[in-house]
Amino acid sequence: MSIYAFRVHKFSVGVLGASGYAGRELCALIARHPGAELAFAAAHSRRGEKSLIGGREVTFIAGDDAPLGDTELVFSALPHGESAKWVARAREAGAKVVDLSADLRPGNGAFDVAALGTTLGASLAAAPYGLTEYEREAVRSASVVANPGCYPTAILLALLPLLTRGLVAPGGTISVMAASGVTGAGFKPREDLLFGEVTEDFRPYAVGNGHRHLAEMNAVLRGLDCDADLIFTPHLLPVARGILATITVPLAAPVAKPLDLWREHFASEPFIEISEQVPTLRDVVRRNVVRITALPAANVRTPTLIIVSAIDNLVKGAAGQAVQNANLLLGLDETLGLPL
Amino acid sequence: MSIYAFRVHKFSVGVLGASGYAGRELCALIARHPGAELAFAAAHSRRGEKSLIGGREVTFIAGDDAPLGDTELVFSALPHGESAKWVARAREAGAKVVDLSADLRPGNGAFDVAALGTTLGASLAAAPYGLTEYEREAVRSASVVANPGCYPTAILLALLPLLTRGLVAPGGTISVMAASGVTGAGFKPREDLLFGEVTEDFRPYAVGNGHRHLAEMNAVLRGLDCDADLIFTPHLLPVARGILATITVPLAAPVAKPLDLWREHFASEPFIEISEQVPTLRDVVRRNVVRITALPAANVRTPTLIIVSAIDNLVKGAAGQAVQNANLLLGLDETLGLPL
Amino acid sequence: MSIYAFRVHKFSVGVLGASGYAGRELCALIARHPGAELAFAAAHSRRGEKSLIGGREVTFIAGDDAPLGDTELVFSALPHGESAKWVARAREAGAKVVDLSADLRPGNGAFDVAALGTTLGASLAAAPYGLTEYEREAVRSASVVANPGCYPTAILLALLPLLTRGLVAPGGTISVMAASGVTGAGFKPREDLLFGEVTEDFRPYAVGNGHRHLAEMNAVLRGLDCDADLIFTPHLLPVARGILATITVPLAAPVAKPLDLWREHFASEPFIEISEQVPTLRDVVRRNVVRITALPAANVRTPTLIIVSAIDNLVKGAAGQAVQNANLLLGLDETLGLPL
Amino acid sequence: MSIYAFRVHKFSVGVLGASGYAGRELCALIARHPGAELAFAAAHSRRGEKSLIGGREVTFIAGDDAPLGDTELVFSALPHGESAKWVARAREAGAKVVDLSADLRPGNGAFDVAALGTTLGASLAAAPYGLTEYEREAVRSASVVANPGCYPTAILLALLPLLTRGLVAPGGTISVMAASGVTGAGFKPREDLLFGEVTEDFRPYAVGNGHRHLAEMNAVLRGLDCDADLIFTPHLLPVARGILATITVPLAAPVAKPLDLWREHFASEPFIEISEQVPTLRDVVRRNVVRITALPAANVRTPTLIIVSAIDNLVKGAAGQAVQNANLLLGLDETLGLPL
Repeated sequence: MSIYAFRVHKFSVGVLGASGYAGRELCALIARHPGAELAFAAAHSRRGEKSLIGGREVTFIAGDDAPLGDTELVFSALPHGESAKWVARAREAGAKVVDLSADLRPGNGAFDVAALGTTLGASLAAAPYGLTEYEREAVRSASVVANPGCYPTAILLALLPLLTRGLVAPGGTISVMAASGVTGAGFKPREDLLFGEVTEDFRPYAVGNGHRHLAEMNAVLRGLDCDADLIFTPHLLPVARGILATITVPLAAPVAKPLDLWREHFASEPFIEISEQVPTLRDVVRRNVVRITALPAANVRTPTLIIVSAIDNLVKGAAGQAVQNANLLLGLDETLGLPL
Repeated sequence: MSIYAFRVHKFSVGVLGASGYAGRELCALIARHPGAELAFAAAHSRRGEKSLIGGREVTFIAGDDAPLGDTELVFSALPHGESAKWVARAREAGAKVVDLSADLRPGNGAFDVAALGTTLGASLAAAPYGLTEYEREAVRSASVVANPGCYPTAILLALLPLLTRGLVAPGGTISVMAASGVTGAGFKPREDLLFGEVTEDFRPYAVGNGHRHLAEMNAVLRGLDCDADLIFTPHLLPVARGILATITVPLAAPVAKPLDLWREHFASEPFIEISEQVPTLRDVVRRNVVRITALPAANVRTPTLIIVSAIDNLVKGAAGQAVQNANLLLGLDETLGLPL
Repeated sequence: MSIYAFRVHKFSVGVLGASGYAGRELCALIARHPGAELAFAAAHSRRGEKSLIGGREVTFIAGDDAPLGDTELVFSALPHGESAKWVARAREAGAKVVDLSADLRPGNGAFDVAALGTTLGASLAAAPYGLTEYEREAVRSASVVANPGCYPTAILLALLPLLTRGLVAPGGTISVMAASGVTGAGFKPREDLLFGEVTEDFRPYAVGNGHRHLAEMNAVLRGLDCDADLIFTPHLLPVARGILATITVPLAAPVAKPLDLWREHFASEPFIEISEQVPTLRDVVRRNVVRITALPAANVRTPTLIIVSAIDNLVKGAAGQAVQNANLLLGLDETLGLPL
Repeated sequence: MSIYAFRVHKFSVGVLGASGYAGRELCALIARHPGAELAFAAAHSRRGEKSLIGGREVTFIAGDDAPLGDTELVFSALPHGESAKWVARAREAGAKVVDLSADLRPGNGAFDVAALGTTLGASLAAAPYGLTEYEREAVRSASVVANPGCYPTAILLALLPLLTRGLVAPGGTISVMAASGVTGAGFKPREDLLFGEVTEDFRPYAVGNGHRHLAEMNAVLRGLDCDADLIFTPHLLPVARGILATITVPLAAPVAKPLDLWREHFASEPFIEISEQVPTLRDVVRRNVVRITALPAANVRTPTLIIVSAIDNLVKGAAGQAVQNANLLLGLDETLGLPL
C-alpha cells in the first residue's frame, strides 16, 4: 500500500472575530489544513493577547491591522450587524470572503445594501447561501458566501430531499424542536450561561416567535415553493457542542422507504450520513457531517415523517461548513482539511 | 404570628421495589411526611442491605417478608409486568395500594384480570388513573390507584384545559418532543446509561413508534373525545432529573389569551404553576409541581399553540404524585409531606 | 405518635447582597425558617427586579433603602472589601449581624478598624469566628459574627479533633487538595465559568500561593498552637455545588482508631456526620452538614492520616452556617430551619 | 511550501479486548495511523457485533478466531489477570505485543511466570515498562512491552526530573491527589457509574490503601533509589476523560527555577509539554501528551514543590502511549499516528 501527497501552494487566509467559539474553531481547522495557512487572527478586544488554539499559539491583532489585501480569503466570524461592513472592506481589498454572520443570509434583511455603494452592495446582496450541498455550484463561482446558521444547516439539509421533490403536504405544518449545546450562544459571558445555571437544566427559548433562524429557513422553503408553516422551537442543552433537530413533517403522499429517498438525494455527498440508527450528538461532534434518519410516524391518519438530524454546531454548523465553502471558492478539493 | 400543628396518627405505609429511583424517592418523601411512617422497604435483590435514603438509614427486606397485612397503604414501584400480582397480594392483605408501574394504567393492557380471580381482578381493573388533578374524586374513593407515567403526567396535565373544552383541532396532529433525565431509565446498570456515554450527548429514542406512554396518553385523549393524532418523541438528556415537554397543538379556533385558559382551569390547584416565563427543569426539580406555559405560534395559518410543561420525573412524575394520591386514599390533606 | 409545635414570634431578618449565590440561598432558607421572616432582600444592581427564590417571589431593593433599624438581624453576603462598612451601618442601626464576607475573618486584615471609629471598629474587630462547632459559646453572646469561608469550614472542622489534642506532628506538613463546585466562584459572569468552558474540565487554581482562605486557616491553626505547614490547592469541579477536601496529616503519634477520635470530639453535634464510608458530594448537597472520614495511610513510615471532608459550599459552607450562627445570636434552637 | 509523504508498508496490527474504552481508542487511533492497519478487533462477548469506532465500522471477532500469526503486532486491552495468557499466545504465534493490562507491570506480581513455561515466562517477565520517555531504549529493542497504568503515567512522568536527580527529600512523604474521568473505570455497567449517580458528584476511592497503581509507582520509585513514602488518593470526576494529578513533593534542597528543570529534562520530547500556566483537562484531552507545571509552595519551612500533571487517560494514559510504544517496537517514527 502506498500513500502519496504533494502540494505546492498554501492559500493565505485570515479570520475576523477570531476569539469567539466559531472563530477559534476556524483557527484550529486552518492549523491542520494542508492547503491553507493562517495569515492573521483578528479580535479587536483581545488584540495583543496570545491564546492556545488547536495546539498552536495564536496572537490576536486588531481588525484594523489585518492585512486584508495580502490575504486570499477572509472568514468573518464577527457579530451579526457588524460583519457586513468588514465583508465589504475585505472585498474592496481583493480577498474572497466567507461570512459566518447572518448579515448576508436570506430572510435576514439586516444588511443595508445602499450604505455600501451600488456595486459593492449589489455584489454582497448576490452572495449565495453557503448550504454547500444545496448551492454548491453557486458557491464555486462566487467571491462572497453567506455561511448558513447552525440550526438551518441541520434542519434544511434534513428537509432537502422532501422539499426538492414537493413531498411536503401543501398547507401543512412542519414542527421542529431543536436543541443546541451552549457554545451556540457564544463566548460572551452571561449569567444564564454560567456552568452553575446550565448544568442539570434544559430550556426552550424564543418560543412561539421569531428566532432569527426561522426567517432564514422560511426564505429557503419559499424559494423551493414549499408553502408549509414552520414552527421552530430551539432549546438549550447542558452540553458544550452539538445540535439535534427532531422534525415532524406531514407528507403530500406516503413515502414507502424514506431512507432510500435520502440516500438517493445525497448519494456521493462526503459530509452527509444517512443512518438507520437514530443519530445522537456523539455521532457527529468534532466532525464536519450531518447525520440524518427518517421514520414514518405510527398510527396517524396524515402520513407523517419524523426526521432526526444532528450536527456539531461549531463544525458543520459554522467553521467546518465555512472551510468547505472556502475550499470551493479557492478551487480546492471540497473535503480538504475537514474532519470526517 | 403563630404556628400550630397537631397530629395523633401516623399511617403505616410500605414500599415494594424500594431500591430503584422511584422507590428511593418514595422512602425519602415518607421519611419527611408528618402523617405517615415507613413500615417496610422491600427490594428482593438487596434484602438485608442498608442504604442511606433521605438522610435516614433504611434496611431492605424481601417482598415475601413484607408485613402487608399490618400496613395501611402500600406503594408498588416494582417493574412493569411484575407489579400487578403484588398489588393483588397487598389488596388481599387489606392494604390500599398506589401502583407506580404501568400494569394498571389505561392503554396498557399488560395486566391479566382473569388470572387474579373475578372479584380481585375486577377491582384492580377499575383502579382510577391517578393523574390527580384530572381524577381527584375517583382517587379519593378508591382502594387502588394506577399512578401515571412520567411523560403522560407532564403532557396530559398540560393538555387538559384544551382537551376538556374540545379546543384541539379535530383530526389535527399534536406533536410532542419531550426530554427526560436519565433517572427515568431506571437504576439497573446499562452500558448506554454510563456517565461516559451520556455526558455531552442527547438522544431521541423510540422514534416513530410505540413508547408505552403513547398508548397511555392516547387512551386518555380518546376518553376525552379528542380524535387528534399524537406524535411523541422522547429524548434522553444528560441530566439526572426532570422532564420537559414541548407540545405543538393545532386549535379548533384561536385562543386569545392562552394563559388565562390554563389559569382558570387550574385555579386553586396547589401543584400546578402557570407561568408567563417559559419553564425549565430548574424551576421544578425536587418539587411536586408541574409548571406550564402556552404561547401562540407566530405567522402560521392554522392557529397553533406551543405549550411547554416541566416536572421532576421522580417527584410529580412518580413518587410525589404517588404520595399525593396516597394522601387522598388515606383521607389526609392532599399536600401533606410534599415539597412545593 | 404526636407532633406539637408552637411559636409566637418570628424574628425579622434581612439580607444584603441577596442576588448572589449565597444571598439567594439565605433567602431560600429564611423562607422555610419557622422562627424568622424576610424583612428585605437588598441587591443594589437589581433593585426593583423580582426573582423566584426557594419557590417564593422576592423583590430586590437597594441597600440604601433597607430598613436596617427595623430588622433584628442582618446577613451580609456582600463582596469582600465592601461588606464591613455595611456591617457597621447595620450595627449602628441596632441590628445583629452575620457577615458572610471575609472582611472580619481571622487572618484577613482587609478591614480597617480605625475608619469605623473606635467603639464600632473595636466591636467589629472582636467578632467571633463563626465556625459554630468551634466557637459556639463566643457566637452565642456576640452581636456580630464572621462567618467562615467555605473551604476553611470543610477543612478546619475535619482537623479540629487533631488540632485541639495536639496530635499533628510538630513541624509537619498538612497537605490539602480541595475541590469546589462553580457556585463557589460567584454569580458574576466570567468567560472561564461559562458552561462551555467548565464542562468536562477540572482545574487547579491559586496553586502554590495565597488563596485568601489559606491565611484564614493558618490563623486558626496558629491559635490552636499548631505549627504545621499548610499546603492548600483548590480545584474547580464541573458541578454546581459542593466542596470535598482530601487532607494528608502527619501525626505526632499513631492513632489506633481514628474515627473514634472524631466521634468522641463531635458527640452530639447535630450537623457533623462521621462516616466509615468515604464521603462524597452527593451525601451532603442541600444539607447543613459536614461529613468526615479518617483513615491511616498504609505502608508509610511517618504515621499519617488521610481525612476526607465534604460540605455543600452554599449551605454549611455559607448560608446554612450563617443561619446556624443567627439562630444562636437570636437565642433560638441552633438547628431551626436548617436542612438535615 | 511543499509537503511530501511516501510510505510503502502498513504493518498489520490487531486488538484483543477491543470493545472496552481503551480497546475502542486503539481501534480509532489505528484507523488514522499512516503506518498500520487493523487486522482484527477481538471482543469475545461481542463477537459478530458491528460498532462504529473512529468513523469506521468495526466487526468484533472472538479472540480464538484472531489470526495472531498473521499479525505483526498485537495490543492486548484485556482485563488484568486475563491478559498475560493472551500475550503469551500472541508471542508464541510470533507477534510483538503491547500489553495494556497490569499483568506485566512492575510491582504487580499477578502474573505467574512458571505457568507459561520457562522460556516464554522469562521473556514476558523481562518486558520493559513502557513509560516511553523513561524506558525508550529498552522498549525499542523489546518484543513485549508492559504499557503503564493511567495514573502512574501522569504521576511518574511528572516526578522523573526530581527522581533521576535525587532531589526528593530522603524519607519524605510525596502526597498525590489525583482525579480521573469515568472512562478510567471501564465500560462494564455498574450502578455507581450510571450518569444519574456520577453527575454533580465527586468521590475519593481506594483511600488510604492499596490501589493497584500505588504498587506500580512504588516499584519505579524504588528502582530510582527514592525512599520517599508515597500517599496516593484517586478520585472519580464527573467527566468522561482525563486525569489530573496534584503532587506535593518535599525537596532535599530548594530548586530555584523549577520549570527549567523540567524543560531541561524533557527537552525535545514531542509528547511532554511544560507549561507556566497550570494544566487542566481541557488542555490534554484527545491528545497524546502529558502537560506539567511545577511551583514552589509559599510560606513553608520544608522546601516543597507542587506539581500538576494532566493527561487524557485513554490516550497518553492508555491507547496513545501503547501506539507510541508500538511505533518503537516496529521501528517507526515514534510520533506516527498520534494526535498532538
